[in-house]
Amino acid sequence: MPGSPGAEPAVRTVADAGERELIARIRRRAPAAPAWVTVPIGDDAAVVEPLRHALVVLTTDALVEGVHFDRRLGSAADAGHRALAVNLSDLAAMGAEPRAALLSLMLPTALSLDEFDDLVDGFLTLAARHRVALVGGNVTRSPGPLVIDVTALGAAGRRRVLPRGGARPGDELFLSGSIGGAAAGLAWLRSQGRQPGDEPGDPEMRECVRRYRRPDARVRLGLLVGRTRAASACVDLSDGLSDAVRQLAQASGVSAVLDADAVPVDPGAQAWFTSQGRDPLQAALHGGDDYELLFAVPSRRRRQFLATARQARETSVTRVGVVEAGSGARLRSGTQESALSAGYEHFGSQGGTGAS
Amino acid sequence: MPGSPGAEPAVRTVADAGERELIARIRRRAPAAPAWVTVPIGDDAAVVEPLRHALVVLTTDALVEGVHFDRRLGSAADAGHRALAVNLSDLAAMGAEPRAALLSLMLPTALSLDEFDDLVDGFLTLAARHRVALVGGNVTRSPGPLVIDVTALGAAGRRRVLPRGGARPGDELFLSGSIGGAAAGLAWLRSQGRQPGDEPGDPEMRECVRRYRRPDARVRLGLLVGRTRAASACVDLSDGLSDAVRQLAQASGVSAVLDADAVPVDPGAQAWFTSQGRDPLQAALHGGDDYELLFAVPSRRRRQFLATARQARETSVTRVGVVEAGSGARLRSGTQESALSAGYEHFGSQGGTGAS
Repeated sequence: MPGSPGAEPAVRTVADAGERELIARIRRRAPAAPAWVTVPIGDDAAVVEPLRHALVVLTTDALVEGVHFDRRLGSAADAGHRALAVNLSDLAAMGAEPRAALLSLMLPTALSLDEFDDLVDGFLTLAARHRVALVGGNVTRSPGPLVIDVTALGAAGRRRVLPRGGARPGDELFLSGSIGGAAAGLAWLRSQGRQPGDEPGDPEMRECVRRYRRPDARVRLGLLVGRTRAASACVDLSDGLSDAVRQLAQASGVSAVLDADAVPVDPGAQAWFTSQGRDPLQAALHGGDDYELLFAVPSRRRRQFLATARQARETSVTRVGVVEAGSGARLRSGTQESALSAGYEHFGSQGGTGAS
Repeated sequence: MPGSPGAEPAVRTVADAGERELIARIRRRAPAAPAWVTVPIGDDAAVVEPLRHALVVLTTDALVEGVHFDRRLGSAADAGHRALAVNLSDLAAMGAEPRAALLSLMLPTALSLDEFDDLVDGFLTLAARHRVALVGGNVTRSPGPLVIDVTALGAAGRRRVLPRGGARPGDELFLSGSIGGAAAGLAWLRSQGRQPGDEPGDPEMRECVRRYRRPDARVRLGLLVGRTRAASACVDLSDGLSDAVRQLAQASGVSAVLDADAVPVDPGAQAWFTSQGRDPLQAALHGGDDYELLFAVPSRRRRQFLATARQARETSVTRVGVVEAGSGARLRSGTQESALSAGYEHFGSQGGTGAS
């Protein structure tokens, strides 16, 4: 009870605030809207004017507590960051420049206002980094889990969009960054005896945990590759590389072959999965949450693609395979080949990506 | 157990289907995308190209089971319909023409595939009526309630947008349709002893229930009034007329006065609330879910406004009050005046509107 001797100080929760106070808190924290936002937060709908002669690119992706995140494994700010990052990754995979976002929150009434503010700040800090304007959204009560549903809007030039179905036989597959880090970070957080706030002592493992909690989206890489038309197809890795290769092959009507020796596995993930008696490559191929980009690049564009990737200065890119005639996705190791399995597509255990 | 003698036939649930099967079911049910949808459902993000020289209008609004709807009181198709209607109403209140929508679903694993399909069909039937293209979305598991989060995109001409902050002293307030019907319908459904599937015998009450379950959005009225610039401000009634008048007054920096005798209360609501010993006007003023539009109209535009409303052929419009200098929202009855109360703004009991 508030005021009782020895009682915990009363924590104001979202249930103590009205919907409008919650929205007012968001507006106070959000920077002023840029000029191309004609009507910002606060009206029945937001009005934005994307670049002239540009296409509007739209995506939505939700994080559901207990499905996509666990507040015992990361802060509310991490969740706010991640909810935007996964959407920015979808825009990057289209070659779009992110412009605006809508934030739809479903809040358990026991969520404290401090956590609410942290969540919003995590979202807005990443938004500021990519000059994304928060133009509207929605706040409502949830009788169940905390849900953060984000819609992001980007702009892309005509014929500068990167579809997932554009790969052709003879193209090469390039991957940004490395894989497995986020999955290893999550596995570390879930491993026995962890307390909230624990950080790995090992710097490589710490980086894995950071990648899980605050994934980067390869916004500039996707945008520049789209602009220079250096790739024929692109898809992001929200559900893991194995899944991404399958998606790209299926949408393009081609066969895609990964070279097992070429796939860059995060060094922290390599060490962690080995220590757990698991094959690091298989764990990394099927681990989600990496948010890297997979490109198909025509051979004649390879040099331009590599120059563009350097110019983006976000991360390295690695040639990880080839596109062939046929269908299906395979992993090639020397003279041996195996089918790339779906791994991780089960509605019961995860979801929330790729529908748009 | 499936196959046991005498057991119920096994019902396939969304947990038996993969995320991709669920998306495939949606794609099979959705009509072919119109030409201005450059990249439809199935890529990392949707790409749409709104009207040339038009602004893009964006809104998002979620329905959460147990907060905004109850599957014991209406079908899954009703919920799908309503989730789109509330967003179309926001676009209408901006004077925007609806063009595209994203559908983000958080599904309890026990939801049957039949209910899933019904929900999608309810959404798509309304989308088809307003020529809205479903261009993407998201499907994920919910460990709690069913959540339907919709983002809608509209187009509006420059200077054709209807803000909520444009009302000026001397303007008149006009309301589309009548109020209280949805609230009466909901109260009837919640009243004692109802079985799922019960329908009121009285045709006026049946209409109230229909208005609650399948609200209309005044899409054409909002669009035409925006195009003809016949109103200075507009807001929709998602949280009731009392709240809408307050919102409009506050955003415009004016005082808004409702005429108690002029407010059109739905006849079914009039009868229902009277039979329950409640003041029908007060119940209707604070009842939500009406999704009518409230306009501020400069006197010199009155004739044009009325002609435009007739042309829209959606519903009648009624002059319900005036805009004066000052601040606040009041109800005038003869020579008596009272403040219009917020009524219904409590995060614990409802929410989900007006943030964008």
